[in-house]
Amino acid sequence: MSASSMEFVSVLISLAAFLFAAWLFSWVKKQPLDNERIIQVSGLIQQGARTFLKREFLVLARFCICAALLIFLFLPSPIWTGSFVPNLMMVIAYLAGTVFSGFAGKIGIEVATIANGKCAVAAKKGISPAFMTGFRGGAVMGMAVVGSSLLGVALVYLLTGDSTICLGFSFGASSMALFAKAGGGIFTKTADISADLTGKVELGIPEDDPRNPAVIADNVGDNVGDVAGMGADLFDSNVASMAAALVMAASLDKLNGQTTFVSMVFCYAALGLLASIIGVLCARIGKNGNPTRALNYSTYVTTAIYIALTAAATAVFGYNWNIWCACIIGLLVGVIIGIATDYFTDDTKSPVHNVAKASHTGPAFTILSGVSYGFISVLPAMFGIGVSALAAYKLCEGLDPTGVHSMEYALFGISMAAVGMLSIVGMIVSNDAYGPIVDNARGLAEMGDLGDEVLDITDELDSAGNTVKAVTKGFAVAAAGLTVIALLGAFMSEVNEAAALYGLEGISGFDVMNPLVFFGMLVGAAIPAVFSAMLMLGVDRNAQRMVAEIHRQFKEIAGLREGTALPEYDKCINIATDGAIRELIPAGLMAIAATVFVGFIGGVQAIGGFLTGNIISGLLLALFMSNAGGLWDNSKKYVESGHEGGKGSETHKAAVVGDTVGDPFKDTAGPSINTQITVVSLVASLMSTLFLTLSIFG
Amino acid sequence: MSASSMEFVSVLISLAAFLFAAWLFSWVKKQPLDNERIIQVSGLIQQGARTFLKREFLVLARFCICAALLIFLFLPSPIWTGSFVPNLMMVIAYLAGTVFSGFAGKIGIEVATIANGKCAVAAKKGISPAFMTGFRGGAVMGMAVVGSSLLGVALVYLLTGDSTICLGFSFGASSMALFAKAGGGIFTKTADISADLTGKVELGIPEDDPRNPAVIADNVGDNVGDVAGMGADLFDSNVASMAAALVMAASLDKLNGQTTFVSMVFCYAALGLLASIIGVLCARIGKNGNPTRALNYSTYVTTAIYIALTAAATAVFGYNWNIWCACIIGLLVGVIIGIATDYFTDDTKSPVHNVAKASHTGPAFTILSGVSYGFISVLPAMFGIGVSALAAYKLCEGLDPTGVHSMEYALFGISMAAVGMLSIVGMIVSNDAYGPIVDNARGLAEMGDLGDEVLDITDELDSAGNTVKAVTKGFAVAAAGLTVIALLGAFMSEVNEAAALYGLEGISGFDVMNPLVFFGMLVGAAIPAVFSAMLMLGVDRNAQRMVAEIHRQFKEIAGLREGTALPEYDKCINIATDGAIRELIPAGLMAIAATVFVGFIGGVQAIGGFLTGNIISGLLLALFMSNAGGLWDNSKKYVESGHEGGKGSETHKAAVVGDTVGDPFKDTAGPSINTQITVVSLVASLMSTLFLTLSIFG
Repeated sequence: MSASSMEFVSVLISLAAFLFAAWLFSWVKKQPLDNERIIQVSGLIQQGARTFLKREFLVLARFCICAALLIFLFLPSPIWTGSFVPNLMMVIAYLAGTVFSGFAGKIGIEVATIANGKCAVAAKKGISPAFMTGFRGGAVMGMAVVGSSLLGVALVYLLTGDSTICLGFSFGASSMALFAKAGGGIFTKTADISADLTGKVELGIPEDDPRNPAVIADNVGDNVGDVAGMGADLFDSNVASMAAALVMAASLDKLNGQTTFVSMVFCYAALGLLASIIGVLCARIGKNGNPTRALNYSTYVTTAIYIALTAAATAVFGYNWNIWCACIIGLLVGVIIGIATDYFTDDTKSPVHNVAKASHTGPAFTILSGVSYGFISVLPAMFGIGVSALAAYKLCEGLDPTGVHSMEYALFGISMAAVGMLSIVGMIVSNDAYGPIVDNARGLAEMGDLGDEVLDITDELDSAGNTVKAVTKGFAVAAAGLTVIALLGAFMSEVNEAAALYGLEGISGFDVMNPLVFFGMLVGAAIPAVFSAMLMLGVDRNAQRMVAEIHRQFKEIAGLREGTALPEYDKCINIATDGAIRELIPAGLMAIAATVFVGFIGGVQAIGGFLTGNIISGLLLALFMSNAGGLWDNSKKYVESGHEGGKGSETHKAAVVGDTVGDPFKDTAGPSINTQITVVSLVASLMSTLFLTLSIFG
Repeated sequence: MSASSMEFVSVLISLAAFLFAAWLFSWVKKQPLDNERIIQVSGLIQQGARTFLKREFLVLARFCICAALLIFLFLPSPIWTGSFVPNLMMVIAYLAGTVFSGFAGKIGIEVATIANGKCAVAAKKGISPAFMTGFRGGAVMGMAVVGSSLLGVALVYLLTGDSTICLGFSFGASSMALFAKAGGGIFTKTADISADLTGKVELGIPEDDPRNPAVIADNVGDNVGDVAGMGADLFDSNVASMAAALVMAASLDKLNGQTTFVSMVFCYAALGLLASIIGVLCARIGKNGNPTRALNYSTYVTTAIYIALTAAATAVFGYNWNIWCACIIGLLVGVIIGIATDYFTDDTKSPVHNVAKASHTGPAFTILSGVSYGFISVLPAMFGIGVSALAAYKLCEGLDPTGVHSMEYALFGISMAAVGMLSIVGMIVSNDAYGPIVDNARGLAEMGDLGDEVLDITDELDSAGNTVKAVTKGFAVAAAGLTVIALLGAFMSEVNEAAALYGLEGISGFDVMNPLVFFGMLVGAAIPAVFSAMLMLGVDRNAQRMVAEIHRQFKEIAGLREGTALPEYDKCINIATDGAIRELIPAGLMAIAATVFVGFIGGVQAIGGFLTGNIISGLLLALFMSNAGGLWDNSKKYVESGHEGGKGSETHKAAVVGDTVGDPFKDTAGPSINTQITVVSLVASLMSTLFLTLSIFG
């Protein structure tokens, strides 16, 4: 089957995903919602989320215009050196990347803010309908994300036939992800921390108490951070993995005068989406079923179906089995990393218990033990990513009949391992978006006075969401890790293409004994640390503003404390929104500026080192922060469920400190590092011509 | 001047350093000590420190016997493949490395545990005599460390003429450093945390109150962790930098059929020692002088003298000026990094103020802001190390007249930058050892009831010690960073020598696009995180044992709380000692085992990646942990000095949590990472032949 017909099939399957999402959406909409209070509050949440998205899109639009202008002038090569057509196409692809990603995020937010209330009400009828409402709501997001990412990449490639332009689309997705994930992360943690500090700690009122002015902002935050942000993050990783694979597939196809490899990338990606659709359809839960098991079950079903479908396609279309193996190894390693991550954050395992126990001695020991387990938890994932990259490389380096281009084949193998790892991303996003929906449902059930039985059910659904979240986060980081290795290969391809164009010498790698590479590596390694520090300081500053506002409301609004007057929820939402955008921009610009600086100082070799250092330290810190944060969260919950002194004890207070530290770790800084790495990799790839021709020492 | 005569001069200058140290020692001994209580307590401290050293040396001896046996069988090449003589020499050099380092540590501990009491008593006569006692006590250690490291390397090279055997000496020093720094770090923080938790927090008695059973252990800990441990650490870095430079100098000399480069290494190292001796002699303080200024002044004097002396030597002996430049750039960048580090931990600068301010909102914000500034603080040091490596490389790569070996010259330049950075290590160790002496003096002054005036003076001396400590720590990490880059070069030299011997193909670098390198890099990057986690969990476990013992004593010893009965200090010392050794060994073995595992799996390419990843992530984490720890410590002190609510406020409590988290960060895990990196690098270099010939995929 030719590549262009496979792109066509990809377009068709993504349209099918949209149809499926529409059906799921209408199913969710049809569920009853009969509680006045819940209708009112979930309306407020929806309105708040829309406000945030609108502001975010407006700022992003300004950012995009600047970026588009720069792209038009300089990328893929300076406009004065040739035709303006590729530059224009690059601009269009870039803007399409932001629009497609934003569109998926918008759909996700809309359904999530409807499904939350419906899920709460459905819980009155039992766990099964509540689960289905939450899960199908999440699946709308999953289908939208994967459908629009595949559709976008396929359309760009179908129309331009140029894989470099796909990098532009990917860069657009990254811009969106930077705003959505880092901005959403700052928003959600600002609100969460402020609500907890003033509500639970100062006033002693329960979580989700409607008297707390930050409570709606907190619920909005779950949606903008975990639904829209996480969706944009995985949209970004998914597109980046496809784009990197396409760059390498196209260059191999050019060598061989065929289109098999490009066709293979689209085929495998489309089958991943198909497998996810089937997986979502398979999700079921019995009357007294276990929601965690149901979520995991559908993940495993998706994995199995994907393996079967790709094997069949490989046999039918005569694709290479070694590449198929690389792809499946990527997928399996991703699942294994997810399970290993789960060990460090699961409340039935010893790390959570040990941190809870250490909290006996005070908050300092909560922190120390959590940091320690977080550090240890990076090993399995780093090892797994290393092994899968190594295996993919070794499987594919021998494929070149001439033996001259074995590295290109090997790098294509790695990029296909990344595609494999991300193949079930539709399922992953569905599971992940399920989390904030049921979390919100729990809050709404409390505000709507639905009774203890309903609260028990929503608690169980929520706890399943937390467990699955840890697994999917490990998965997302691992996938980003493999993708950026592939992007490093894409960067090298881009450099060599530009070198050929300018009659310069190409490069065959980045030697760490080259001082430019080492210099770049040291600087690149520092960037994720500085980036996450800037985000965390942003959360801190923003939370202080919001706490001040909450104090003001309690002082100035008569009857608020007694529950006879309503707080001004929108003020808190505005603070979170403005602050998120204000604090995010310097961090993003810092990362991009560092890349440009190193590139113009040390040229492509320094950038190769920079990307390597950035990947290594980024993976390390992202895994550490995500896992430590999840661990603290679950330790607190473990104590609250009656262990080590239970709620209200000194141990609990210490565990709450851990949770508060962990929140920006796991929801702001940790997952944003993924995006930072991708942004930096894409900036490097897109500017490769400039770095090659204009650097000082390179 | 020929190399062997320069080695002879090195031996003479190191003997001069020993004479100078002996003179300083006798000067300190001559100072009066007339307080019964202080004599008694400082005797207890001395005894405790001796107990720890003795135990440590015993366990180390067993470890060394195993290591020596393995070295004899396998290193530098398997004994069955040639003569046993080099292997025997390697064993002797290895054992000499541990003995020389241990000897310096023993001297340092002896003088420090005498000088502390004398310093307290001298404070009755004013700040000037107290400062001189503390400083000269520290200088004994400084001279002993540098004298014995230079003496050892010079003797080994003089007797064997083989630079690879010097790596064996260096490995001995690393073994000692692993025990002294990591073990001492666990000891000191176990005691410190337990004393604080039970004393200040639970009982509300002041720091250094003699009723606290852990108070002597705490004072012992200052000595074994900060004097012996830090001394062994810098002994290790110093020897490693010389050994790495010698390996490369010898291979260049062999190429050119001369001895200039080896002679240069010894000449520059010996002049560094000479400059330090003069610098120590210049240290003076006026009657109302500022001790911080006095310490910094002597550091700058040493730097200036070193620059002048090496310039003169370069002119006289006709050394190459580019290499001199590389060396001086290393030194200056080291000083600049020290100053940049100071910014993040100085209590007159904004990071300390901001963390204190954040503590208002509770301990979670102390942690979050401290982690954030700690993350940001890595950037200047990483950048500085990168720039100095780049500059040294660029300065020296053009020196090869044939142009074939420019990388060897460049790597020699980097190793000389490391030698330059470590040239003033005699001064650095003196300043650093001053810290725990005056810290102890403060405690003794409190226990000996010397009055508030004396306490004020010792507080001022102590605060100067803390400030200088932050600077020297940044310096030590940076020096280790450059040294390990040089060791990477040494590893490559070793591999190529072995390859030539076995008729295999040599290597010219480590390409990150090679999947074996990337695999090694990912695993290597995880090791410092796991290593420091294991040490911190060790401190945690050990502190819990000691807290239990303290509780037991307060329960069982009648009159202890009232001060009419003495606690059983020795029990606490024993717990700290046993625990330190027990917790340390698994961490050290893990790092070594990971190196061996990766080496046998992926061969020399994987090890090249492993070392690179290890260096990158090790530097990142060491800088982060050291700086964040220092920042929290000083924030607490800043609050205690009356800011943001002062002592006893909620802000203070939050700041104390930060300090408690920071303690194992900055005194156990952070600085031990240096040693871990060096140990791993040396294991790799020493086993290079085995990895080259016996790996699975390599």
